[in-house]
Amino acid sequence: MKLLILNGPNLNMLGKREPEIYGKNTLNDVLNLVEEYCNSLNCDVEFYQSNHEGDLIDKIQMTDADGIVFNAGAYTHTSVALRDAISSVKTPVVEVHISNVHSREEFRHKSMMAPVCLGQICGFGLDSYILAVNGLYRFLSKDVK
Amino acid sequence: MKLLILNGPNLNMLGKREPEIYGKNTLNDVLNLVEEYCNSLNCDVEFYQSNHEGDLIDKIQMTDADGIVFNAGAYTHTSVALRDAISSVKTPVVEVHISNVHSREEFRHKSMMAPVCLGQICGFGLDSYILAVNGLYRFLSKDVK
Amino acid sequence: MKLLILNGPNLNMLGKREPEIYGKNTLNDVLNLVEEYCNSLNCDVEFYQSNHEGDLIDKIQMTDADGIVFNAGAYTHTSVALRDAISSVKTPVVEVHISNVHSREEFRHKSMMAPVCLGQICGFGLDSYILAVNGLYRFLSKDVK
Amino acid sequence: MKLLILNGPNLNMLGKREPEIYGKNTLNDVLNLVEEYCNSLNCDVEFYQSNHEGDLIDKIQMTDADGIVFNAGAYTHTSVALRDAISSVKTPVVEVHISNVHSREEFRHKSMMAPVCLGQICGFGLDSYILAVNGLYRFLSKDVK
Amino acid sequence: MKLLILNGPNLNMLGKREPEIYGKNTLNDVLNLVEEYCNSLNCDVEFYQSNHEGDLIDKIQMTDADGIVFNAGAYTHTSVALRDAISSVKTPVVEVHISNVHSREEFRHKSMMAPVCLGQICGFGLDSYILAVNGLYRFLSKDVK
Amino acid sequence: MKLLILNGPNLNMLGKREPEIYGKNTLNDVLNLVEEYCNSLNCDVEFYQSNHEGDLIDKIQMTDADGIVFNAGAYTHTSVALRDAISSVKTPVVEVHISNVHSREEFRHKSMMAPVCLGQICGFGLDSYILAVNGLYRFLSKDVK
Amino acid sequence: MKLLILNGPNLNMLGKREPEIYGKNTLNDVLNLVEEYCNSLNCDVEFYQSNHEGDLIDKIQMTDADGIVFNAGAYTHTSVALRDAISSVKTPVVEVHISNVHSREEFRHKSMMAPVCLGQICGFGLDSYILAVNGLYRFLSKDVK
Amino acid sequence: MKLLILNGPNLNMLGKREPEIYGKNTLNDVLNLVEEYCNSLNCDVEFYQSNHEGDLIDKIQMTDADGIVFNAGAYTHTSVALRDAISSVKTPVVEVHISNVHSREEFRHKSMMAPVCLGQICGFGLDSYILAVNGLYRFLSKDVK
Amino acid sequence: MKLLILNGPNLNMLGKREPEIYGKNTLNDVLNLVEEYCNSLNCDVEFYQSNHEGDLIDKIQMTDADGIVFNAGAYTHTSVALRDAISSVKTPVVEVHISNVHSREEFRHKSMMAPVCLGQICGFGLDSYILAVNGLYRFLSKDVK
Amino acid sequence: MKLLILNGPNLNMLGKREPEIYGKNTLNDVLNLVEEYCNSLNCDVEFYQSNHEGDLIDKIQMTDADGIVFNAGAYTHTSVALRDAISSVKTPVVEVHISNVHSREEFRHKSMMAPVCLGQICGFGLDSYILAVNGLYRFLSKDVK
Amino acid sequence: MKLLILNGPNLNMLGKREPEIYGKNTLNDVLNLVEEYCNSLNCDVEFYQSNHEGDLIDKIQMTDADGIVFNAGAYTHTSVALRDAISSVKTPVVEVHISNVHSREEFRHKSMMAPVCLGQICGFGLDSYILAVNGLYRFLSKDVK
Amino acid sequence: MKLLILNGPNLNMLGKREPEIYGKNTLNDVLNLVEEYCNSLNCDVEFYQSNHEGDLIDKIQMTDADGIVFNAGAYTHTSVALRDAISSVKTPVVEVHISNVHSREEFRHKSMMAPVCLGQICGFGLDSYILAVNGLYRFLSKDVK
Repeated sequence: MKLLILNGPNLNMLGKREPEIYGKNTLNDVLNLVEEYCNSLNCDVEFYQSNHEGDLIDKIQMTDADGIVFNAGAYTHTSVALRDAISSVKTPVVEVHISNVHSREEFRHKSMMAPVCLGQICGFGLDSYILAVNGLYRFLSKDVK
Repeated sequence: MKLLILNGPNLNMLGKREPEIYGKNTLNDVLNLVEEYCNSLNCDVEFYQSNHEGDLIDKIQMTDADGIVFNAGAYTHTSVALRDAISSVKTPVVEVHISNVHSREEFRHKSMMAPVCLGQICGFGLDSYILAVNGLYRFLSKDVK
Repeated sequence: MKLLILNGPNLNMLGKREPEIYGKNTLNDVLNLVEEYCNSLNCDVEFYQSNHEGDLIDKIQMTDADGIVFNAGAYTHTSVALRDAISSVKTPVVEVHISNVHSREEFRHKSMMAPVCLGQICGFGLDSYILAVNGLYRFLSKDVK
Repeated sequence: MKLLILNGPNLNMLGKREPEIYGKNTLNDVLNLVEEYCNSLNCDVEFYQSNHEGDLIDKIQMTDADGIVFNAGAYTHTSVALRDAISSVKTPVVEVHISNVHSREEFRHKSMMAPVCLGQICGFGLDSYILAVNGLYRFLSKDVK
Repeated sequence: MKLLILNGPNLNMLGKREPEIYGKNTLNDVLNLVEEYCNSLNCDVEFYQSNHEGDLIDKIQMTDADGIVFNAGAYTHTSVALRDAISSVKTPVVEVHISNVHSREEFRHKSMMAPVCLGQICGFGLDSYILAVNGLYRFLSKDVK
Repeated sequence: MKLLILNGPNLNMLGKREPEIYGKNTLNDVLNLVEEYCNSLNCDVEFYQSNHEGDLIDKIQMTDADGIVFNAGAYTHTSVALRDAISSVKTPVVEVHISNVHSREEFRHKSMMAPVCLGQICGFGLDSYILAVNGLYRFLSKDVK
Repeated sequence: MKLLILNGPNLNMLGKREPEIYGKNTLNDVLNLVEEYCNSLNCDVEFYQSNHEGDLIDKIQMTDADGIVFNAGAYTHTSVALRDAISSVKTPVVEVHISNVHSREEFRHKSMMAPVCLGQICGFGLDSYILAVNGLYRFLSKDVK
Repeated sequence: MKLLILNGPNLNMLGKREPEIYGKNTLNDVLNLVEEYCNSLNCDVEFYQSNHEGDLIDKIQMTDADGIVFNAGAYTHTSVALRDAISSVKTPVVEVHISNVHSREEFRHKSMMAPVCLGQICGFGLDSYILAVNGLYRFLSKDVK
Repeated sequence: MKLLILNGPNLNMLGKREPEIYGKNTLNDVLNLVEEYCNSLNCDVEFYQSNHEGDLIDKIQMTDADGIVFNAGAYTHTSVALRDAISSVKTPVVEVHISNVHSREEFRHKSMMAPVCLGQICGFGLDSYILAVNGLYRFLSKDVK
Repeated sequence: MKLLILNGPNLNMLGKREPEIYGKNTLNDVLNLVEEYCNSLNCDVEFYQSNHEGDLIDKIQMTDADGIVFNAGAYTHTSVALRDAISSVKTPVVEVHISNVHSREEFRHKSMMAPVCLGQICGFGLDSYILAVNGLYRFLSKDVK
Repeated sequence: MKLLILNGPNLNMLGKREPEIYGKNTLNDVLNLVEEYCNSLNCDVEFYQSNHEGDLIDKIQMTDADGIVFNAGAYTHTSVALRDAISSVKTPVVEVHISNVHSREEFRHKSMMAPVCLGQICGFGLDSYILAVNGLYRFLSKDVK
Repeated sequence: MKLLILNGPNLNMLGKREPEIYGKNTLNDVLNLVEEYCNSLNCDVEFYQSNHEGDLIDKIQMTDADGIVFNAGAYTHTSVALRDAISSVKTPVVEVHISNVHSREEFRHKSMMAPVCLGQICGFGLDSYILAVNGLYRFLSKDVK
């Protein structure tokens, strides 16, 4: 089983950007945490981050992963194109957020992608990624059987 | 560590109610699944279900659990009183849904409680509860240390 | 055939409450009127009234009636939980109102339950119940045959 | 006592039009059903159908019926002129729909005429007409006495 | 194959009405242009224009054409009854506009009929009719085979 | 100079319809009042009333009057087709209402035709027609000179 | 009989301000036109203009006129205080506008004062004042008799 | 004279819940303060708190108090049923809030009950209850005389 | 301690203006009632009324009172400038209304000033002023100690 | 004459993506179909597809085509930048959609680009491209003459 | 060249009012800063501040300045009358704000005057005035040449 | 001190694009104007333009400038990702527009980035850049001291 951990705009700034919201850990810390966890599940993992909406669409279309953990950052709230990219592939996608988006600005409460994702997880800090990998792993394991 | 698994209105009908949305598992199946998982974490667990908004408020105020996994069902979308109950206690609460509420009716997209919860998880079927317990356990473990 | 006549909040005040809107008849008058009519149809009838949303949900889930005539009063306009209760059972439900809710305040024009009910009847005073019983009886008779 | 059964646009297509919503019965079947029922009440009945808003207004203004059962079809949701026609006469009008309009498109949830009608009945298939005649008959009988 | 070219309110004023929006050609010019084009496709054609919503509904219900090119004019934005007329027949309908309705007043941006039509064409002047006939012809040709 | 006094739906019910809003005078009283006033201005006058939107459009398109006083009744608030009819002719139109539409239901506050009329007058009872004729007469007199 | 011609903010700029909307006549021209017309009716007239909302309220409260012709300019669309001033006196008020406010910006379509005025007149240029005086004169003459 | 001091959901948490908003005083402190004040007015007083909407409705219907001071907490903003309960009795009700609800979240700005209460008081901390008792006492004293 | 009783537009018309809403007492009656009550509290009092928004702002900025009881009348619902005036001084302000603004027109339900006031009182007739003075007195007494 | 056939995000997935909406034909099939048709018109054609909003803007600015057939996919509904790109060049653009966007999700009903395009065509499957090329060809032929 | 620096309501409180938003400088500091800068540009300058909307309108109408730097304070968001005053004169006006209004309350995001001003500057503290003078000076210098 | 002048989509078309809105100057003219001005301030300057949202985010994250003058073009109104990019760095950003965006289409009135920028300047043509550089220079100079 192979998972893609896909990160959208400004997540490369993690640890530097608004630490009172996102904490002090960097994107590298996410990578290490998730990699270790995936190893324990005997699961391959690929990481990709981009600030470009088009790059993220390209990646979703071309990945050979069995499932995607996707933190689309700001594009979560505005991108119909990413929603359509998810609809256009069969790979299940889990939407994930580090912060609790519902306790922030009104425009962050709505997710354009949510209706076409398998599920959503938010508010657990870096652990949001771990829970998403776990949920996806459980889903794919059932599916396969 | 002790967790409360709190279920709101109509979740006692699980397995009987709209199986094309909620699956064929019953609330008892949730209980067994969660109990087994909590045992593996060496974690006490209490279950409570009610169709009464007031009972759910009473329970949140009076529980001695260290954390709450809360599927508020339909009250998620309408109850300011449950939101205030969560605000009035220090116990962290994780909002959980079996189905992907964002691919259903418009009025199910908004959660009154989300802004005062630790985090949210939806769309993973019964596994939503497992992921919520996991997230809460990780959060409380950090907190305690 | 058995029917449940279910009445929600403040309908126990009928006759006392705003008689210029609801008339001078009491809930007892409704009971007598409906009972007599059901007898003429050779139909069993059960009556239940509560001001508690949770009690009404419990009743809908547990009744052994073949059909429900439901005047949900104020909960009509706010309760997603009652809507879900109706969805979670197979018993057909007819929504009924004594007054013409559409000529009253804006917030009384919308029914949360309407989309999951068999049909609706409003504006005929106490006769609304008679028509609802009649409609339900006709529906169930066809169904049975 | 004489009743007018007034049908608006596209109801002449009943049985042919979207049978999954409106059933397979034709407008003629409605006529026969209602006529038989009216006979049993010793009540005269007149039928009129038109696709023209102006014709329906003319009919409401000129009828000598004691009450009107009105299925305004699509004009229900858009016509202020029909609402004013009802307001301009003393004849009581019952709004009736074959399908449950509240489980269909958003724009079918609002009735422009509802606030000036005696009452509304929807969702009972052809029986909606029978219940409407019954309700109107009961109302007019009381009124007369 | 036979096509109906149906024109709604005020299109008889073409050439006289607001020529800066609709151009200087008259409805007769449309007729000649379309007739010539239909001849080249070996396709029968019938023309009908009315300012009366009810007449347009009657025509849609009664036509024996295989397809309809429909410029509903102002009724496009307000008529649920015409939408229902289209739904009630099996004949495919193409919505057509001479001007680009989207660069005009806000209330002209919404079409009540669009969701039940085969497709829409707008902004090409008289050529909008030619393209619509072409599209309908191609659709019907495929269908027939 | 010739003026057309055009009256829309339900204005033939004047005097009978809701006298607490529209007063006790009939449409005939309007006719006599306006005719007398037009005579004093040496002005020809034609009267037309219809409950049919299409008839009103036809009349606007075909009249040879120099100006139109138009009480569109309920169509004021819903008809884009009448607005387009006014736009499609060069004859100036004055919108007129007997009652003060702004102190009535919300949906009567908006006029679809107002932006394409010369001016509006409302709230003066039958005198609204006199003022409208006066205003139109003054406008056309200036224009002609 | 005495009438007050009350003009609000920026009407002292008439003739200088946006002549493509308001024409080239000055407020003095309005005064002369109205004075002459009032003389012909044997009617006293007082003129008052202010850019100050408070001054306009003071004037409405203190005038001894039998009726008021009021062009409130921009305050028409924003002032609840002027609306309340009109409600607090018994003097009938006619709202008047030189331009057709309905063919201008959206925020000029709504009048805060309209529901408490006798009637409204707009779009006739300076003649709007003449028509308003005429309407008020007719109203007061009836009233007096 | 007898007054009922009615407190809704989560007010039993006073002193514990969000002290930066509600202060450090407990519901018991409210009770003592109000009791002492009522004694000084020679006025009987009853206290009741519940987290259950239905219990609050039951209490309003059954109380023999001459007036009610009601802090409905979160139900203020959502409960049509409590509004109807107040409408269904003759006892005057004063709505009261400890905090200034208007400087908090948007959804706390609207009160469903306000239009059917005698008056409202908010923002004075525990003193809100004292002022409410005072206002109700003055109202009832006048009434009685 | 010194209090300012500040009254906004049209409150000088009290007793004359819409007595079915505001009662028959005049502003002078308010003054006498409040003065007597302030005397009993050993509290100085100043009265000021103006129909001019600017005068009210000037007064708030320049007063040497320790607290302000402010009935802003219609400016309550529209004036950001008065809100800012309150924010720009340290003097606590209590918003007060004679009538229950929430049972009147929709636009009277919103107060622009509420979020920056200490508290609000409405619906008690003239007693609203007494309760406001009482609340302010209690607040200032605590503050001072 | 040279035309650019421009395709936006996810259109490279045609045939793979949601075939129940978009059919089984691939983007290559579109290319072949259009190329053949352009050849028959003696018209050069260039194809370009990108998932990147910026690439599409670049292409519109730099193309030497005489006209553009543009299927902007999801960017249709969100991109002001593409709208501005179209405005910033003189090349006429025809908006095209394979499916009938008006019978899909609400957010697909609005096109940001429509007001600055020559015209729009939707709902004809792959034929939408053919009709668009036809319409553009006719427009450019007239223009040239 | 002569400039008018016009300040609206509550700006006389600068330095005293909410210093965390507006800083500690007073209106006098603005005056000195701007005067010095204008001297360096060889430009006359006049200062005017008022809390009265009407005074600000009067000033705009009567000033002989070549350009106006206008901080309308709270009237920015509510005054159509000030907007019309700006439209009614030929003098160019620059809208200026000390704070960044877009990071404050929602109702401060909209400017009624913006569409009729030359330009806007906000968020630079007192420097906003300097930049505005600079921009206006540059504009007028070009204009004059 | 070093400043980045960042230009978004379609600004490379300046001079060619809609010259009635943006004038005839090209982006090169902006560059020359700003460079000369920066030289006079002894300030380094870097220029960057892109039509790609992702490129603009990358640039904001990676620039070593002390301040950014940013004309985001159409992305101003839609891009949450650019807003987050600005939030994620410490460099102050000034939002700038050539035209007065508030006198254009409704959707151009809202800026997603405004709340996280230092300030905004619009409507001064090319001078908007000069004023922005000036404001930023003054801000950074203070900051540095």
